[in-house]
Amino acid sequence: MASRLSRQERLIILSQELIKRSGELVSLDELAEKYKIARSTISEDLSLIREAVEAWGTGEVQSSSGVGGGIRFVPIINSDEAKAFLQKVKERLEEKGRVLPGGFLYTTDLFNHPSITSKFGEIFATVFSNLSPDVIVTMETKGIPTAMMTARYMGLPLVIIRRENRPTEGPTVSINYISGSTQKVQLMTLGRKALEGRERAIFIDDFLRGGGTVRGAIALLKEFNAQVVGVGIVILGSPKVREAFSIPITSLFVLESINELTSEARLSFSDSISEFFNWEGKE
Amino acid sequence: MASRLSRQERLIILSQELIKRSGELVSLDELAEKYKIARSTISEDLSLIREAVEAWGTGEVQSSSGVGGGIRFVPIINSDEAKAFLQKVKERLEEKGRVLPGGFLYTTDLFNHPSITSKFGEIFATVFSNLSPDVIVTMETKGIPTAMMTARYMGLPLVIIRRENRPTEGPTVSINYISGSTQKVQLMTLGRKALEGRERAIFIDDFLRGGGTVRGAIALLKEFNAQVVGVGIVILGSPKVREAFSIPITSLFVLESINELTSEARLSFSDSISEFFNWEGKE
Repeated sequence: MASRLSRQERLIILSQELIKRSGELVSLDELAEKYKIARSTISEDLSLIREAVEAWGTGEVQSSSGVGGGIRFVPIINSDEAKAFLQKVKERLEEKGRVLPGGFLYTTDLFNHPSITSKFGEIFATVFSNLSPDVIVTMETKGIPTAMMTARYMGLPLVIIRRENRPTEGPTVSINYISGSTQKVQLMTLGRKALEGRERAIFIDDFLRGGGTVRGAIALLKEFNAQVVGVGIVILGSPKVREAFSIPITSLFVLESINELTSEARLSFSDSISEFFNWEGKE
Repeated sequence: MASRLSRQERLIILSQELIKRSGELVSLDELAEKYKIARSTISEDLSLIREAVEAWGTGEVQSSSGVGGGIRFVPIINSDEAKAFLQKVKERLEEKGRVLPGGFLYTTDLFNHPSITSKFGEIFATVFSNLSPDVIVTMETKGIPTAMMTARYMGLPLVIIRRENRPTEGPTVSINYISGSTQKVQLMTLGRKALEGRERAIFIDDFLRGGGTVRGAIALLKEFNAQVVGVGIVILGSPKVREAFSIPITSLFVLESINELTSEARLSFSDSISEFFNWEGKE
């Protein structure tokens, strides 16, 4: 390990550390001690990083005064990058052969790949940062990778609602809900220790069909006196589902049609996302 | 967006891009076009980044020749940072009150927090990089966040084994196995599309009690002609479990004792991890 880093080296190492600790309040004293340099030098380094990420539109460096003082790196995905990325994912989702028996769209390969979920996470973190959430919530299983990456970019804890009571969660609170995809009454359960109460939560999931899971999650969180303040969905099952909710639903894509016979699906960018990023029209 | 970035600005932005695209082969042409500078300038920037991360022990920049040429950023966690971090997690895990009825250790709050799973991921990525895996595999649910972060730092796809057949996975291959925690025969199922065959897989999970899940995963992957070449576990249920496997098992911690009466657990660093990082003795 080097005993002394040059400014260029520090900018490289510090920039990477800030990305890894996105959303976290990092104390200047800690950084000064870690890199064995004066606090004033760290402040100068951070100013240069702030200017660069703001110029390139990839993040904000927020200063927080108060005891000791600290900074928080808030990653941002810029409009062009988000559009180019979502366009590519849309093309992959529309590839022939993705329609499964029962009219389901096969997404597992894409939604489990870190290069994709990581960008979903950056997009949701960008969209929801102004809601000041305390926690990211998802229901097992397919939404977890995207929810995890969103939590990571926002520096927030992830809470995973389970389908069954598990002895590893301790005492739980459970509710029944009607699943949109199976039309059956199912269980949703969350450990008492998972939330303290009064949290502002963003609910993230990969797909929203009928909305039963979202309604269930809202009801379950009420039992903890916690509130769902935003919902982020990768694919909305149809444009109309959104109208059934009083909470705004941000989805990346809308499933426009799915044809089991030809095994073809058509998707569009959702209004919520194209308006947020100020894209001119839907594609 | 700035039309032209200075070298310092580029070093900041590029360093962050490389972390976000860890493990991915990134072409120099793409970077040159994106940042609107000559390929030779990008090469110089990357050399500076390589020197800085190598001096500080936080990563490697591997060059790959061949068509177009490219680089791959491989993050590394250095021995001191890994030790300080694991020491802190150990203290949290040993906090009074974590022992649940049935003698289970409550870990959900820690193992779902991105600041912790992210470091677990960095450690596993560092440990397993020399095995040249193609894929990270886990079984739902509690291991997913750590497996996802490992996959992310290695730039590899994540494959999640399910407990039930789901219509969203298409045709599946299933096996039965005996769960270590429940002593019941349970199902393990994986979509046919999840693996192509012949993959070298790292299996990641949060806890290993009897080893039934790992044995099941090895058998299930054999059905795909894929091979588990490494196993990474956050907490090994007891020091003896490891002996039952021919594949080396790398765990971060070993659960030494758990007392339901006093609600106290004692853990140690595992030999596998202290030997890898060359720490002097067990603590």
